[in-house]
Amino acid sequence: MTLTLTALPGMPYVHPGDDLVELLLQALERANLNLVDGDILVLAQKIVSKSENRLVNLSTVQPGLRAETIASQIEKDPRLVELILAESNEVLRTRPGTIVVEHKLGFVCANAGIDHSNVAGEGGIEGEWVLLLPEDPDRSASRIRVALEIISGVKIGVMIIDSHGRAWRQGTVGSAIGLSGLPGLLDLRGQPDLFGYTLRVTTVGVGDELAAAASLLMGQAAEGTPAVHVRGFPYPLVDGSLKELLRPKEMDLFR
Amino acid sequence: MTLTLTALPGMPYVHPGDDLVELLLQALERANLNLVDGDILVLAQKIVSKSENRLVNLSTVQPGLRAETIASQIEKDPRLVELILAESNEVLRTRPGTIVVEHKLGFVCANAGIDHSNVAGEGGIEGEWVLLLPEDPDRSASRIRVALEIISGVKIGVMIIDSHGRAWRQGTVGSAIGLSGLPGLLDLRGQPDLFGYTLRVTTVGVGDELAAAASLLMGQAAEGTPAVHVRGFPYPLVDGSLKELLRPKEMDLFR
Repeated sequence: MTLTLTALPGMPYVHPGDDLVELLLQALERANLNLVDGDILVLAQKIVSKSENRLVNLSTVQPGLRAETIASQIEKDPRLVELILAESNEVLRTRPGTIVVEHKLGFVCANAGIDHSNVAGEGGIEGEWVLLLPEDPDRSASRIRVALEIISGVKIGVMIIDSHGRAWRQGTVGSAIGLSGLPGLLDLRGQPDLFGYTLRVTTVGVGDELAAAASLLMGQAAEGTPAVHVRGFPYPLVDGSLKELLRPKEMDLFR
Repeated sequence: MTLTLTALPGMPYVHPGDDLVELLLQALERANLNLVDGDILVLAQKIVSKSENRLVNLSTVQPGLRAETIASQIEKDPRLVELILAESNEVLRTRPGTIVVEHKLGFVCANAGIDHSNVAGEGGIEGEWVLLLPEDPDRSASRIRVALEIISGVKIGVMIIDSHGRAWRQGTVGSAIGLSGLPGLLDLRGQPDLFGYTLRVTTVGVGDELAAAASLLMGQAAEGTPAVHVRGFPYPLVDGSLKELLRPKEMDLFR
C-alpha cells in the first residue's frame, strides 16, 4: 500500500479572478500527471483566497475601540486586529503579536488565519494588503472538485489547508479548512481490533492527517508549491466536510 | 518533488524480546525496498513497546486512593488509572473513560498512551494486559536507526508515533513520540517569503506532519500495518528529538 504526494511544479503567483482549475490542469500536465479515480488535490489556502479576491487593504480598515485596546496590549496593528475580530466568533487567548480565536468557520487558529506574508500588493500598494481565508472553504473545494471532475471524467477529492498551531506542541502543522469529495473523519468506533476487543473510542482525523502530509511538500518560504497531488489515499472517497473535524464547543475541555 | 510512503506488508505480531531491526529488514525485503540515504522508517508505538516488553498485567497493579477516586468519577478500571497516574507528570482534565495527562515524556495525551486494545495476553491471560509507551522513545528510535544504518550502510531517520487527540478538533492524528536522525521542528523564523517580507513566527512541526502522513497508512483496526517506509522527505535529515516538538508549559496558553 503506497501513498504518493507530488508537489505540482510551476504554479504561478495567483491573482484575484484567476481560474484555479485552469492553473491546476496546467500544473498537472507539467508534472505529467493525469487525474484518475481516487486522486486528491490539496491546495494551500492562499491560492484559493487570492483567486477569490479575499485581499483587504489595511488603509480601508477603521479599527474600533475593542481592536484598539487589544492591539495596544499585544503590540499589533489595530487595523489588523479589527479584521481578526471581524473574522472570529470568539477570542480565546492573546499573547504578544498573536490572538488565538475561534474563526467564524468554526476552527481555532491564530490571528483568524489572516496573512501578511507572501501577499503582494494589488495595484502597487505593497505591505498594506492582507489576505482573509475563503468565505466558505468547503464550497470552494466543492466548486474546484466539480469543475475538475467534469473536465477529467473521474471522481476526485479536493482539500484546502492552512498551517495551524497546536495547544501543547511546537510548530505549525497543515490542517484542513475545507474539503469536498473525501472524508474528514473516519469513525472506527465499535470496530473490532486484532484480537476481537472493541475499539471503543477511536475516530481518526484522516483529513487532517492528509493535510499535514501535503503541507510537508508545500514549504513555507520562498519557493512554495501551493498545490499537491495525492494518489493512494487508503480510504473510500466518501464526501466529507470541515464540520466533521471540529470539536463542538461543549465537548471542548480546553477553553 | 515527490514524497512516497509505503506500508510494509506482512509485519508479524510482535512479542517481547523480538528483534525489530530484523523484522523491519524482512518487511523491507518483502516490499522490494532497499534503504537509501535519506529514507525514514516510521513505526507504530505498539510494536516498539511490545518488543521492549512494556506489557503490564493489570492483576499485578494495586490502585492507590487517588486512582480509586478518579476511577469512580470517570468509570474506569482503578488499576488502569493507577498506571496512568504513574506514567504521568500531571492530570490536565478528566471526562468519562478518559484522563488527559501530561505524560512523563512531556507530551499531552489521553490515558498516558496506555493501550488496552490490540494487546494479546502473554501466557494466555487475555484481557488483563495493557501496554505502556516505550520508556525513552528517542533512545528506542536511535537504537533502531543505528542498527539499520550499520547493516545498510546508509543514513536514515527513524520515528516512533502514536495517535493523539487534539484540543479543538475531532479525531486522532499520528504524532511523533520519539525520533532519531530527522528533525522534529523546522525553524523558518527570519527567513524571507516570496516578496521579501520576513516570516516572523513560523516554526513547522515537520516531524508531526510526517507522523500524521504515516499514520494514514497504518490503519487503526484489524489488519494494521505498523511500519511505514518514507522516501522523499523534503528536508535535510539533521538529527532531532521529541523535545523540539513539546511546548514548554510556561508557553502553554491552554492549561
